[in-house]
Amino acid sequence: MSDLGDRLAALLGGGHVSDGDTALDLAHDEALAVEHGVPAFVVHPGDTSDVVGIVEACRAAATPVVARGSGTGLSGGAAAPEGAVVVCFDRMDTIHAIDDVDHVAVVGPGVTLEALDAAVREHGLTYPVRPGEQSASLGGTVATNAGGMHAVRYGVTRAHVVGLEAVLVDGTVVRAGGRLAKVSSGYDVVQLLTGSEGTLALVTEVTVRLQPRMPVRRTVLAPFGDLATTTAAVARIVGSGLAPALCEYLDDPTMDAICAAADLSLGIPDEVRGAADAYLVVELVGRRAERVEEDLAELGELLTELGAPDVYVLPEGSARRLVEARELTFWTIKARGADEIVDVVVPRSAMAAFIGRSREIGAAHGSKVLGCGHAGDGNVHFAVFQPDPEALHATLHEVLAAGVALGGAVSGEHGVGRAKAAALAELGDPGALEVMRRVRAALDPDGLLNPGCGVSAMARR
Amino acid sequence: MSDLGDRLAALLGGGHVSDGDTALDLAHDEALAVEHGVPAFVVHPGDTSDVVGIVEACRAAATPVVARGSGTGLSGGAAAPEGAVVVCFDRMDTIHAIDDVDHVAVVGPGVTLEALDAAVREHGLTYPVRPGEQSASLGGTVATNAGGMHAVRYGVTRAHVVGLEAVLVDGTVVRAGGRLAKVSSGYDVVQLLTGSEGTLALVTEVTVRLQPRMPVRRTVLAPFGDLATTTAAVARIVGSGLAPALCEYLDDPTMDAICAAADLSLGIPDEVRGAADAYLVVELVGRRAERVEEDLAELGELLTELGAPDVYVLPEGSARRLVEARELTFWTIKARGADEIVDVVVPRSAMAAFIGRSREIGAAHGSKVLGCGHAGDGNVHFAVFQPDPEALHATLHEVLAAGVALGGAVSGEHGVGRAKAAALAELGDPGALEVMRRVRAALDPDGLLNPGCGVSAMARR
Repeated sequence: MSDLGDRLAALLGGGHVSDGDTALDLAHDEALAVEHGVPAFVVHPGDTSDVVGIVEACRAAATPVVARGSGTGLSGGAAAPEGAVVVCFDRMDTIHAIDDVDHVAVVGPGVTLEALDAAVREHGLTYPVRPGEQSASLGGTVATNAGGMHAVRYGVTRAHVVGLEAVLVDGTVVRAGGRLAKVSSGYDVVQLLTGSEGTLALVTEVTVRLQPRMPVRRTVLAPFGDLATTTAAVARIVGSGLAPALCEYLDDPTMDAICAAADLSLGIPDEVRGAADAYLVVELVGRRAERVEEDLAELGELLTELGAPDVYVLPEGSARRLVEARELTFWTIKARGADEIVDVVVPRSAMAAFIGRSREIGAAHGSKVLGCGHAGDGNVHFAVFQPDPEALHATLHEVLAAGVALGGAVSGEHGVGRAKAAALAELGDPGALEVMRRVRAALDPDGLLNPGCGVSAMARR
Repeated sequence: MSDLGDRLAALLGGGHVSDGDTALDLAHDEALAVEHGVPAFVVHPGDTSDVVGIVEACRAAATPVVARGSGTGLSGGAAAPEGAVVVCFDRMDTIHAIDDVDHVAVVGPGVTLEALDAAVREHGLTYPVRPGEQSASLGGTVATNAGGMHAVRYGVTRAHVVGLEAVLVDGTVVRAGGRLAKVSSGYDVVQLLTGSEGTLALVTEVTVRLQPRMPVRRTVLAPFGDLATTTAAVARIVGSGLAPALCEYLDDPTMDAICAAADLSLGIPDEVRGAADAYLVVELVGRRAERVEEDLAELGELLTELGAPDVYVLPEGSARRLVEARELTFWTIKARGADEIVDVVVPRSAMAAFIGRSREIGAAHGSKVLGCGHAGDGNVHFAVFQPDPEALHATLHEVLAAGVALGGAVSGEHGVGRAKAAALAELGDPGALEVMRRVRAALDPDGLLNPGCGVSAMARR
């Protein structure tokens, strides 16, 4: 091992340091089209002081540092550059506190969403962030500001993070926020670090707000004849005050694919399936069954009025399986050979135009562009099938540009990572990018934290 | 006029530029104990390009710039340093758009909360931020990250701001966020600027999320024999899932004072008033009257179980007047000669301990410390009566330190301003303060934006 390797081994114990070429499965995430290098080392800190020691050693050796949670990210935010040190937070997986009075949990960054939600369930509480992969870590979801199906009701990750401990590249430990419902005491460092993809600091502890757990949930499925009607309905549903816990659209091929993958029959007559271009799935939750039933009836009338030829209230088992199948969409379309997935957010009002335009772009390049998304949030996910790298790149680039031209952004919830760093630099607002570059340079002047990812790809040195 | 004055007059027209000594009423906000200087000029830009011209002129003349909304702030964030240029946003008061589909409003920074809420009401929507002073401007509330009574249900200002246009000190125009429900595309510049008190940029346009307006609201008042029981009840109410639209506590003297000021009788028997140490006011809202009534009954049972000797459902008129009187608390206690008001946030679980400790601190210094607050958020407001400046300072300092020692922060919603800049520098987490200083230096290297306010008071030059 090199001097750096010796120093890391002395710090962590040899069992927690691997040579990079022996741990390549920890050098990337789930992004489909992002390359990664061979890291110098993969390390597993046990606590904050280990993390301080790691960044100090890497800084002394001018070696880049990449933070890694569960590796379930979809934009290459955890793809290691050649020769970097990958910091895996799997050992920092302690739930430090679940507080019934302040309604917060304080956790290590390696705690998974699954573990946290299971632990808070006993307290009648929930951590409502569900980005689709419950093995994702809290640290990873903070890094990407992960969203998911429940964001339409509860907001994305940054709406829930109230406190962070993090380590700057010079070893400074930062504690921001706390078990607090609100703060106005200087710049919001919690919000600055959330979504910064490990390019400003390494997060070593997360405090999140918890929500009362709703005991009743009911789900409806509504086919629509065309996309414009589908997405127009969404604004009315969100504006109704029914406060859906999810409001998803799926185009017909995507619905077919996930039902086939989950061996799920929805009990919809063939002629209705045949006439449907898209589906809305809407879930209502509440404290009392009779109210949820009443709201469900109101939602059904609203959907019919808005153009759904029929509305299906799903039995509990089917509903759960459909939502689970929807959460697994990434794996389904990956198994079907999708060449890339896209996450774009546009104003809700522009969703139909954006999806239509994206289908045209796909057709022009001979690419198949299928999709689903968090319709309540204007957040669209496409699967793009196009084996030719040039045609794939052209399709993706034009789709992102179309989203931004409609008032959107290059990522709604997956983050920029390495997959979209060039798109952000090209399509982002120049003034906002200037602020980002200056902030990055101020906190990581030597550019050692996750270089090539997101803002860091265009940072001044 | 000086060269700077000539340049500003040429830019804006002479009618929109005043010599500072003729416009001293625009050189401060409502902070009780903050000094201000005589500004060089007070200017009134009409649009973003005016603001760009103003900062360019001020920068060329090395003159500090202070942004001013309606001047209703309580921490001296708009108190002008001697010789500064005060930028009043009163002319930039256009509501550019109210969007029924995206559920956002796009407004100039000079639009007041009152004007915005009146405009969105017709659309069945609401902008739920109510910091107590509805003449506050959107720009001002973004600067301070204003909270208020509804934050327990809807969150503080930063939960609602989805897009900003702002001007950096070098004239760069930044456009961040948009009509979007979620974004994960680089650092969140919207969140960075929100709460930055005009020390990073001047906000020239604000896009806020709107909420469905709830037609039904009902209010209960519960006296409690002691403070610990009162605040312990709060956690149960918030955790119940009843989602109150406000959950306020008032100590007995504060309740007396606001009722007297509003000539309001609550219909509570004298013996109950006499035995009460504190009160909770809880408002429930909803779409359907019968559900709100049902929830009200559940809330009443909960309050009784939690130790309230009696629970009063207020008639609509009394409820509205009580909430209005509570919103006017600042003016009431100001009229009674309070020497300072304090805004501290602590974990909800620490509220009783914090209030008890603050009363002890007050007693030790011969200061009267009375209070009320947003109990659901752990956000406490004290009125401090202490004419002696040294004893007042000691009281305030020890109260803030006690709040921070209990896991709190020096301001929950008023901002740091000039009133608490020293307290933030002394009591804040050193690592977090280091991040703030670096960010400030990166965006305003010459320290011209609101010097002496909040983070800028301790910034590196």
